[in-house]
Amino acid sequence: MRLRRIKGTEEKLYAYTDYVIENPSELKGKWSEYFANDNPIYIELGCGKGNFITQNALRNKNVNYIAMEKAAEVIIKAVQKADNLKLDNVKFCHFNVNDILDVFEENELSRIFINFCDPWHKKRHYKRRLTYRGYLEMYKDILNDDGWLHFKTDNNPLFEFSLNEFVDTNLKIRNISLDLHKEENDWNIMTEYEAKFHSKGMPIYRCEIKF
Amino acid sequence: MRLRRIKGTEEKLYAYTDYVIENPSELKGKWSEYFANDNPIYIELGCGKGNFITQNALRNKNVNYIAMEKAAEVIIKAVQKADNLKLDNVKFCHFNVNDILDVFEENELSRIFINFCDPWHKKRHYKRRLTYRGYLEMYKDILNDDGWLHFKTDNNPLFEFSLNEFVDTNLKIRNISLDLHKEENDWNIMTEYEAKFHSKGMPIYRCEIKF
Repeated sequence: MRLRRIKGTEEKLYAYTDYVIENPSELKGKWSEYFANDNPIYIELGCGKGNFITQNALRNKNVNYIAMEKAAEVIIKAVQKADNLKLDNVKFCHFNVNDILDVFEENELSRIFINFCDPWHKKRHYKRRLTYRGYLEMYKDILNDDGWLHFKTDNNPLFEFSLNEFVDTNLKIRNISLDLHKEENDWNIMTEYEAKFHSKGMPIYRCEIKF
Repeated sequence: MRLRRIKGTEEKLYAYTDYVIENPSELKGKWSEYFANDNPIYIELGCGKGNFITQNALRNKNVNYIAMEKAAEVIIKAVQKADNLKLDNVKFCHFNVNDILDVFEENELSRIFINFCDPWHKKRHYKRRLTYRGYLEMYKDILNDDGWLHFKTDNNPLFEFSLNEFVDTNLKIRNISLDLHKEENDWNIMTEYEAKFHSKGMPIYRCEIKF
């Protein structure tokens, strides 16, 4: 989806000073200090319009959440959701995942969520998939020893590719689902995309990975 | 599928003395001696009507194949295929997989194929699935150190279950496919079931497992 650039969005975004971190790399290694507690830190790479991260933050007050999203026109909707809910355990970074090592110290994170990331369907673009082994190397650095990556997608070829990246790089996988919604569950929080795809009857794939 | 018992099938089956091993447990640890060569031994658990194993045997003359099938009315069709093709590198056992340790010595096999096995869809029957961890323990014993299990199915819940059994028991997986026929390939030999499901546009799942 190509986004229409809306003039003034960045200014509007950075006006939410309680929620949006303008220079996240200044907090590298200091996120717990910034949150002023010892709660674990969970991040979402590509938070979209933010239903997933804000509902998680609402449900789990003892976790600090950081949402990353490179599209200003999208992340602002996520920020507004957090603001409406008066959440104090979620922050937002208008940020490209490629620079993630500038923002987090080794072992600083307890969980990474990747939900419905761009499938980059052309073979020459596979290296841009967020589950490509080059990215996995980065996640390994910033997750702590008990940390897990949680991955969801509706895209069958992307999920197949991702499983093969995980097994080929000898990562531990658990809770593989090839149809997440075949049984009702109360723990899964849906993203906006997920709700749309699920309502069309499309299967959602999910698994958890340890490094 | 409940099979109609046809009177005299067993007699007819055992008349194919070049192909059907009446007492396979007598050959435990002696299969190479029986084949009179040092070629690797590949087995198929549940060969059905035998297209897969006979076409494999035709293509790979330097491999010894053993097909197992508990339904006499089905395996006889496989035997007849082998007989028509005058194959000398495939043998058949009318046999239940549960007794596999009586038939093969430790490290005797180089590959096990499981194709479109019974999905046993009731939860209380999961232990009967041929990818249940109890069976995996047995395969581990009889496969040699370089041996692999090759698994195909059209059944989404069975494939999900199987992947989780493999990762939960710390097995090595490779070449995971969530839609085997999405690209044409010349290496895959289809079973009778597979051809039928594929012609209906249903995805075929596949992976390889090492112990």
